Amino acid sequence: MNTIDTQITLVGAGPGAPDLITLRGIQALRSAKVIVYDALVDERLLEEAPLAKHLYVGKRNGFKALEQQQINELLVKSALTDGRVVRLKGGDSFVFGRGWEEVEFAQQHGIPVEVIPGISSSISVPALAGIPVTHRSLTTGFHVLTGTLSDGSFNSEIQWAAQGNSTLVVLMGLGKLDQIVEAYLKAGKPDVAVAILSNGSLKNATKVIGTISTIEAIVAIEQPKAPAVIVVGEVVNYSQLKKLTNYASCRN
Amino acid sequence: MNTIDTQITLVGAGPGAPDLITLRGIQALRSAKVIVYDALVDERLLEEAPLAKHLYVGKRNGFKALEQQQINELLVKSALTDGRVVRLKGGDSFVFGRGWEEVEFAQQHGIPVEVIPGISSSISVPALAGIPVTHRSLTTGFHVLTGTLSDGSFNSEIQWAAQGNSTLVVLMGLGKLDQIVEAYLKAGKPDVAVAILSNGSLKNATKVIGTISTIEAIVAIEQPKAPAVIVVGEVVNYSQLKKLTNYASCRN
Repeated sequence: MNTIDTQITLVGAGPGAPDLITLRGIQALRSAKVIVYDALVDERLLEEAPLAKHLYVGKRNGFKALEQQQINELLVKSALTDGRVVRLKGGDSFVFGRGWEEVEFAQQHGIPVEVIPGISSSISVPALAGIPVTHRSLTTGFHVLTGTLSDGSFNSEIQWAAQGNSTLVVLMGLGKLDQIVEAYLKAGKPDVAVAILSNGSLKNATKVIGTISTIEAIVAIEQPKAPAVIVVGEVVNYSQLKKLTNYASCRN
Repeated sequence: MNTIDTQITLVGAGPGAPDLITLRGIQALRSAKVIVYDALVDERLLEEAPLAKHLYVGKRNGFKALEQQQINELLVKSALTDGRVVRLKGGDSFVFGRGWEEVEFAQQHGIPVEVIPGISSSISVPALAGIPVTHRSLTTGFHVLTGTLSDGSFNSEIQWAAQGNSTLVVLMGLGKLDQIVEAYLKAGKPDVAVAILSNGSLKNATKVIGTISTIEAIVAIEQPKAPAVIVVGEVVNYSQLKKLTNYASCRN
C-alpha cells in the first residue's frame, strides 16, 4: 500500500527579507513536497526545498492571480497527490491573509492543517523604520485595519479608529489615503503624524512622513509605491529623530 | 589600539517556543558577546552563544526584576565593555516591550542600535490556538491593547474598543477580566465570544472559551494562569470547531 504523509502547513514568510522567517518555517519548507506561494514572498526561500514543486499563484505580467477558491482546491489536490504542502505567504497568514479560508477548505476535505506564524508587516515594517507601534508614554495599544474591503470600498471602521487613542496601522490603504485623512480631520486631529512605509523590509524600502494636514501634498511629490503600511499616531514622530542601523542596510 | 564592535541589537524571541525566533534573530545571538534576557525567553536560545555572557534581568524566586532604568544602563555598560549585546525579549520588542526606551537610552550614549522583529504573541498565540485575528467575513481588523497601565490601573481604552467592530486582543489583562466584561456589557454585547489563552506557544498552553456573559464563571472553575492573551470577538468561535495539528503538540 502506498501511504503518503498528507498535510497542509500555512507558513508566514514575514515582511519580505528572507531571514525574517522563523526557524520552524524553514523546517517546514525543507520537508515540503509542494510549495504554493504568491507575490511578496522572496523566491530565495524556495531554495530550501529544491526538489519540491514550486507553484506560483500570485499576479504576474498582467495575468491575474488565482482566485481564492482555485488556491484552496490546488492546496487540497496537491496534498492528496504529493503529501506535504507548504502554503507560503508574506507576513502572517491570519492578518488579512485569508489563511483561515484555506484552513477551513482543507479541513472539510479531511486534511490536517498546521499553522506556523509569520512576522506581520503591521508591526515589523514600522519597527524596521524606527516606529514603535506602542510606546509607554504615548499609547496603550495599536489598531490594525485593512484600508480596502473585498468589494474595493473604503473600510469605514477607520472613521471609528480615528476617534480613538491607539496607534492606527492601515494595510492596503494607499489608494484610500484621502479618506483616511478625511476621517482624522473629522475627528479634529489635523496635526497627528503619518508615515507611509513602502516595500516592507526590502532594500528599496522607503519612508514618507507628514501630518494629517500635509501628507497628501507630500505623497503627490514623493509618490510612494504599494505595498505600503500606513501608520497614524504620535509614535511616528520617533522615526524622524532616530536612526536604526538596520534601516539603511536591510540584509536581503 | 583595542577597538570593539559596539552595538545593541533588540531581538524579539517570539511567543515562547524556541523555533519561533527568526533566522536573523538566531544570527544575532550567535555573534553576541553578551545576551541580556528576561522571563518568557526559553533558555535553550542561550545555547546559540555558549561563550557569551548571559545576564538574566527578569523576576526570579521572589526577587524583583531589574527596573527599566537599570536594564538600560546594563545594556550600555555591557556594549561599551564587551561589544555586541543582544537584548532578547519574549514576543516583539515594540509591542508593550518597552523596547523603545532601551533604543533611546542607547542612542543618547552614541551606541548604534539594530532591531530584529519577533513574532508577537498578540497575533500568534491566537493563531496557534486556532483563532485568526482577522477573517474576511467577520472583521476588518484587530485592536491590541494592554489591560493594565503602568500604574496598575485598568486601561480605559478597552471601553472604547468594546464599542467597535474589530477583534480585541488584550495582553496583561487577566487580572482585569471583570472590567473587560463590564465594558462589553455596557456596549450591549453579552454574547460575544471570549478566549483566554495561557502560556503562549508552550506545551502547557491552555485555552478557556466562553462568552462575555459566561467567561467569569468559567474562569473561576478553570483558573487559567498568566501570562495570558485574551481575545474578544466572533473569530473566537472558530477555535471550537477546528483543530490544528500543532496546537496539541507544540515543538518545544
